[in-house]
Amino acid sequence: MERLTHIITSEQFNRNWLEEEFFPLVEQMEKKVSLGGSNDLIGKRMISFFYEPSTRTRASFEIAMDFMGGKVVFSTENAKQFSSVAKGETIEDTSRILSGFRPDVIVLRTDEEGMAKIAADFSSVPIINAGDGIGQHPTQALLDIYTIQKELGAIDGLTIAICGDLARGRTAKSLALLITKFKNMKVYFVAPDVMQIDETIKDYLRSHDVIVETSNDIREMASLADVIYQTRIQKERGTLVARYEAGKGFYKIDASVIGLMKEKAIVMHPLPRVEEITPEVDKDPRAAYFRQAENGLYVRMALLKMILG
Amino acid sequence: MERLTHIITSEQFNRNWLEEEFFPLVEQMEKKVSLGGSNDLIGKRMISFFYEPSTRTRASFEIAMDFMGGKVVFSTENAKQFSSVAKGETIEDTSRILSGFRPDVIVLRTDEEGMAKIAADFSSVPIINAGDGIGQHPTQALLDIYTIQKELGAIDGLTIAICGDLARGRTAKSLALLITKFKNMKVYFVAPDVMQIDETIKDYLRSHDVIVETSNDIREMASLADVIYQTRIQKERGTLVARYEAGKGFYKIDASVIGLMKEKAIVMHPLPRVEEITPEVDKDPRAAYFRQAENGLYVRMALLKMILG
Amino acid sequence: MERLTHIITSEQFNRNWLEEEFFPLVEQMEKKVSLGGSNDLIGKRMISFFYEPSTRTRASFEIAMDFMGGKVVFSTENAKQFSSVAKGETIEDTSRILSGFRPDVIVLRTDEEGMAKIAADFSSVPIINAGDGIGQHPTQALLDIYTIQKELGAIDGLTIAICGDLARGRTAKSLALLITKFKNMKVYFVAPDVMQIDETIKDYLRSHDVIVETSNDIREMASLADVIYQTRIQKERGTLVARYEAGKGFYKIDASVIGLMKEKAIVMHPLPRVEEITPEVDKDPRAAYFRQAENGLYVRMALLKMILG
Repeated sequence: MERLTHIITSEQFNRNWLEEEFFPLVEQMEKKVSLGGSNDLIGKRMISFFYEPSTRTRASFEIAMDFMGGKVVFSTENAKQFSSVAKGETIEDTSRILSGFRPDVIVLRTDEEGMAKIAADFSSVPIINAGDGIGQHPTQALLDIYTIQKELGAIDGLTIAICGDLARGRTAKSLALLITKFKNMKVYFVAPDVMQIDETIKDYLRSHDVIVETSNDIREMASLADVIYQTRIQKERGTLVARYEAGKGFYKIDASVIGLMKEKAIVMHPLPRVEEITPEVDKDPRAAYFRQAENGLYVRMALLKMILG
Repeated sequence: MERLTHIITSEQFNRNWLEEEFFPLVEQMEKKVSLGGSNDLIGKRMISFFYEPSTRTRASFEIAMDFMGGKVVFSTENAKQFSSVAKGETIEDTSRILSGFRPDVIVLRTDEEGMAKIAADFSSVPIINAGDGIGQHPTQALLDIYTIQKELGAIDGLTIAICGDLARGRTAKSLALLITKFKNMKVYFVAPDVMQIDETIKDYLRSHDVIVETSNDIREMASLADVIYQTRIQKERGTLVARYEAGKGFYKIDASVIGLMKEKAIVMHPLPRVEEITPEVDKDPRAAYFRQAENGLYVRMALLKMILG
Repeated sequence: MERLTHIITSEQFNRNWLEEEFFPLVEQMEKKVSLGGSNDLIGKRMISFFYEPSTRTRASFEIAMDFMGGKVVFSTENAKQFSSVAKGETIEDTSRILSGFRPDVIVLRTDEEGMAKIAADFSSVPIINAGDGIGQHPTQALLDIYTIQKELGAIDGLTIAICGDLARGRTAKSLALLITKFKNMKVYFVAPDVMQIDETIKDYLRSHDVIVETSNDIREMASLADVIYQTRIQKERGTLVARYEAGKGFYKIDASVIGLMKEKAIVMHPLPRVEEITPEVDKDPRAAYFRQAENGLYVRMALLKMILG
């Protein structure tokens, strides 16, 4: 198995790695959890360093470590506000100092695009990018692509509708970049104009033979999509909400949208969701988002094993 | 031993369980701590999820887990402000997702009455209510009743004066409800009118043959009480303080109040205390509140063992 | 080996202890980390209780515990804002209650001078002062003096320039007090007048035969110093910054200052640094501050072993 060093972007993974190494290892991890865990990472130490809070991501990384016998030796959930970061320390210094405390891996959530890469350049141990501002969130993208594979059995040829605040949400971007690893893909970006995904992303997809279309009404392609990937309107990330609410179009997943979908299609969401998916959808077997969240545990276990095992 | 699932309210426990199972197990736990702990919960995982901070409760649960060989695999102390909760996630979703990360138990402090019950309905693992807003705090009530039993040797027939902000403090309510499990009990509620305990609580107590009286001067019944249970004026819970301070009556426990008390009576307090008990009281052997706090460790160990053992 | 109880001040350590016990043990700890850690503190429990955040100090203590097989059973990083402290609890009560939860040691960062001493008086287990407001930070001083010993081979006869906000920075004070344990020492305090170190510290040093001088230009003694100990202008500690910025003098360590220094001299900093040392200095072998930070891990391991081993 190829040893991973840093995990910084979605693009760093190729299809062969995904299918030959990653997907099978994630499946193994799920089985290991069912058996109570493993001792694969005994003696390994993680620092979990979050500039801004993220229940789901931090919890799944820290619990993943425990399920393999490793330890979280230091954890902070709001370093931007509280720690030396608040005192003006640079990411270069933070990375040098944290790695100087001799952990085996540092899981890092930052608030500015590109910081994970800089941290990796100055760290003496592997860095995992757990989200860098409006940059990327590669482990989320990996759990997303794993969920699609697991739910639908294959990825080539799928039509994926990605909805929500695509201008600022790193989740959508990271997933879109990973989709380029597969064949005959079609992606619909569904968002108000002010929240549409960056042109450079669309160009990148097209240059990798992905068919790209945009829309501002989820009902238009609900019947065509194999995956509807809904994302949250990120109130804490800016003032686009008002414009979103005023924006023409239709973005909410409710029973009427589900009614239009294929029987074997699925609805995903990186969570937390607020009102973008109504609770009535939860009971439909196509609602895959809670299974997706649980996959986050197995995916992070697999990644940690690839880095530390 | 009957297996516990969720711990949500004080009322869910009956006298037989308290006396035959709970009290003896707590005593065992104290002995185990003196011997350095146990391995009873090896391989068990706790998520400690607090919407709002609580040093004492969170510390005693997390340390309890360690004294039995279990692990706290994820802990957050201010989820209301920091986590997905701040982004608007519902307790239903939070509960589903956290339990999807496969812990064996979730200790949950929330900020609204009834949330612990909802969390239990949506969780695939046991939930322990570590306080739900102005709702209940059942594990506090259990450590309170255990302290009374341990300090005074029996509970039937006691006179208990409960003082402070009874309108909003969940501690007083949870203890009062637990008192109904015993015989010939008398409860004085000592508070300014604006902070008196809810009529429905008084009615519930009376319907269970508890004699209930109210007062606004702790000195009136200091000589009659076997237990004076003082509580904190919760400044962070509202603006009642000004009215309290303006309120006629006497609520502070000082040397003069201690001087009125029976020789074998005790003073309790869920802590933290601010000015409701003056420091001069600390040295009196009747000051039971620090012993009470320590009992919190043994009580949480017993509860975790009943759920996970 | 003499058993340590509380660690409260720099003055409590004598030269013999430093040279015969402490320095050799720290060296051993560094070797143990290289070998993956030890089991010296198996079964030992630490409470890590910080009134205010400190990434470096908290991380190094918690990771130190893990490298020796001990456990951090409870950790809080902002108790001043979040915990019972915020509700008005006194340090006396906090100390009594935390020690009642039966840890083997409590690492305590507080925000007022003298609180660590009070905590020790009311605790039934050892307290380690991890900084008490503008008071002291003795474990920082110990890692500083260890770093000087390790980098320069000996301490007697050195000239040490201590720069920055000396009026409020506890680091400078704690180090200065430790310097009195050695012979033929010379200390320059380099700061604007409004930030100069307290006269009582200077008097204390002089009464212990340390030669003391002050300056407001680091360039004046850069060529004379064996150690330049730079400290941060603590923006969060008050409004002195404006005056500092307006103050005449020169305090920044940049390439021009390095150019003046002896070949074997070193630059230290307790970190985090903001602009007091320019990044160009980092690559110079005399820049010892990242090695100094790493020493914090080994020093805290040694101290924990002396208290708990």
